[in-house]
Amino acid sequence: MEKIAVDAMGGDFAPLEIVLGSIQAVREFKIPVVLVGDKEQILTILKNNHEENNPLIEIHHASEVIEMGEHPGLAYRKKKDASVSVGARLVRAKECGALVAPGSTGAAVTAGLLGIGRIKGIERPAILTPIPNEKGRYTYLIDSGASAQPKVETYVQNAILGYIYASKVAGIKNPRIGLLNIGEEDTKGSPLVTEANKVLQNQSIIPFSGNAEGRDIMTGEFDVVVTDGFTGNVVLKFGEGAGKLVKTLLKDAVTKGGIRAKIGALLLAPALKKYLAKPMDYAEYGGAPLLGINGGLIICHGASKAKAIKNAIRMAEDVCKENLDKVVTETLAQLNESTKAESEEEKSVTDKEI
Amino acid sequence: MEKIAVDAMGGDFAPLEIVLGSIQAVREFKIPVVLVGDKEQILTILKNNHEENNPLIEIHHASEVIEMGEHPGLAYRKKKDASVSVGARLVRAKECGALVAPGSTGAAVTAGLLGIGRIKGIERPAILTPIPNEKGRYTYLIDSGASAQPKVETYVQNAILGYIYASKVAGIKNPRIGLLNIGEEDTKGSPLVTEANKVLQNQSIIPFSGNAEGRDIMTGEFDVVVTDGFTGNVVLKFGEGAGKLVKTLLKDAVTKGGIRAKIGALLLAPALKKYLAKPMDYAEYGGAPLLGINGGLIICHGASKAKAIKNAIRMAEDVCKENLDKVVTETLAQLNESTKAESEEEKSVTDKEI
Repeated sequence: MEKIAVDAMGGDFAPLEIVLGSIQAVREFKIPVVLVGDKEQILTILKNNHEENNPLIEIHHASEVIEMGEHPGLAYRKKKDASVSVGARLVRAKECGALVAPGSTGAAVTAGLLGIGRIKGIERPAILTPIPNEKGRYTYLIDSGASAQPKVETYVQNAILGYIYASKVAGIKNPRIGLLNIGEEDTKGSPLVTEANKVLQNQSIIPFSGNAEGRDIMTGEFDVVVTDGFTGNVVLKFGEGAGKLVKTLLKDAVTKGGIRAKIGALLLAPALKKYLAKPMDYAEYGGAPLLGINGGLIICHGASKAKAIKNAIRMAEDVCKENLDKVVTETLAQLNESTKAESEEEKSVTDKEI
Repeated sequence: MEKIAVDAMGGDFAPLEIVLGSIQAVREFKIPVVLVGDKEQILTILKNNHEENNPLIEIHHASEVIEMGEHPGLAYRKKKDASVSVGARLVRAKECGALVAPGSTGAAVTAGLLGIGRIKGIERPAILTPIPNEKGRYTYLIDSGASAQPKVETYVQNAILGYIYASKVAGIKNPRIGLLNIGEEDTKGSPLVTEANKVLQNQSIIPFSGNAEGRDIMTGEFDVVVTDGFTGNVVLKFGEGAGKLVKTLLKDAVTKGGIRAKIGALLLAPALKKYLAKPMDYAEYGGAPLLGINGGLIICHGASKAKAIKNAIRMAEDVCKENLDKVVTETLAQLNESTKAESEEEKSVTDKEI
């Protein structure tokens, strides 16, 4: 099993919750981890949990931290010894198979892009986020925020990355891939998305099920919904806001609904926790992989606690055992081949016609 | 009071629910309506409700209907006597102040654009949709689906239209206008949105509070959130999907949670209905105005029933009594003046420097 690097200093509850989550992953899944960050702080937490001598847990010292508010690019360049950068370099050097990065998403993407490096042929890495759907599974939204300046190829590459993740890592047979648009018809939407739809329709390397609409992200009709990082990020954060609004209104209802509502809420609470809150909780899957880079990187929510970190480490292990970079390179090559063949065929038809 | 035209044939429950909602608006708010559609069908419903002789209710016959699945542009051109088109022409002819249009959003936008006509200087009309927020009010999302091919000016014009609606129609003093983006910093996001941010920062005709993120649509920190019709439509439909998912999971929790959960749900139900479901129900406000045209147009959900129609008619009356087209024209002129003045000033500074 490859070692997983964990940025122990990232996020609101670092290093305590990050180290605790790592310990849980080691105990539960026997995944070897390398905790990157302040050696003394990490060691204290390990000692408090009697894990300072566990051969599956290493510490790799890093003296700096990129904070949530910092400009990711600038901070990455300035803080050479930041835990997230050091972790990314461990992946680049093949000392670890993947990095788990809680905290600033921008810093994690920068570390993935510059520290681990893009797969050749991939223009921009993309974040894939699992969204719970009505069928009790996940729909993978890609890109949910890595790149805000899409071209037509961005959508096509995101479709490839999403397909490979869904079929290899998530183990979905014949995953349904949809392109996020504002109508089901192929000709609807922005010029970029319409053109991307055409390209995806005209290839046969990966399956493509046509346009998906905003509501389809949650129906479960698609396994992967492809979009650009601008739209994906807005959708994801809107979803977060909507969740918070529902919570607020639910609390309001209990407060203002009097004794009857309060008793009702008490009785209903365990079922709500199990069947409503749990499927919606990101801690259940842990994080969102950055795809298109030469190694694994799982981006975790800044507010991640031990459980989310534990599951993110498991996700990191799932990602790196599949050698995604090799599969991505091969699929890209196949797609280029087929496009080339097709345009040559077209050319020969045109030649004959002339 | 100006008359409101109502497309009595639009939507899943036409004409019954549309006519019933119109009757309610007449009875409750004394708003005069013109019911556009099949004369006989409408008259039968009026008779059944003893309203066939109400002087506030007129019927304007139209022999055709644009169905939900039809291509809006083609259907609009082909069906000259479609109820939504006839309604739009009543507004253009100033016989009615506004049109209430349930059913196909595309058909309503086309009728607004071609039938009623754009305000001079407005490139594309925009749909403004009220979204319930945590402060118990509405945040207005504009554009939520009229135009999917934005330019920089699209965002600026949407900001103007949103500002005018919020301050004039919704009566919000000093409304906070945000630009939907993927980070709070002015320089973040897609090139178009970054440029739009700059233009909005550099003018002083309407207030501008900077970037808003997806989650801010529901916090209530902004009164208006400005975006393009692609992003707005995706967000809106995602919100619909999220609402449906929460409902499904809630039902699941009650079904699977046993007798304890069932009793809890029974006790909690009235409070949930009042404090959770009601604020989230579009029927409470009725519809979404199409702004930037020479008259009022309220687009209603295809599944609208009487209550939604009643409230949409009230919204239509609010919109048309404010003479929005005049205010929009004046504001656009002011903005053009100030931009011209500024570029002349810049020019004179440059001249001096040279």
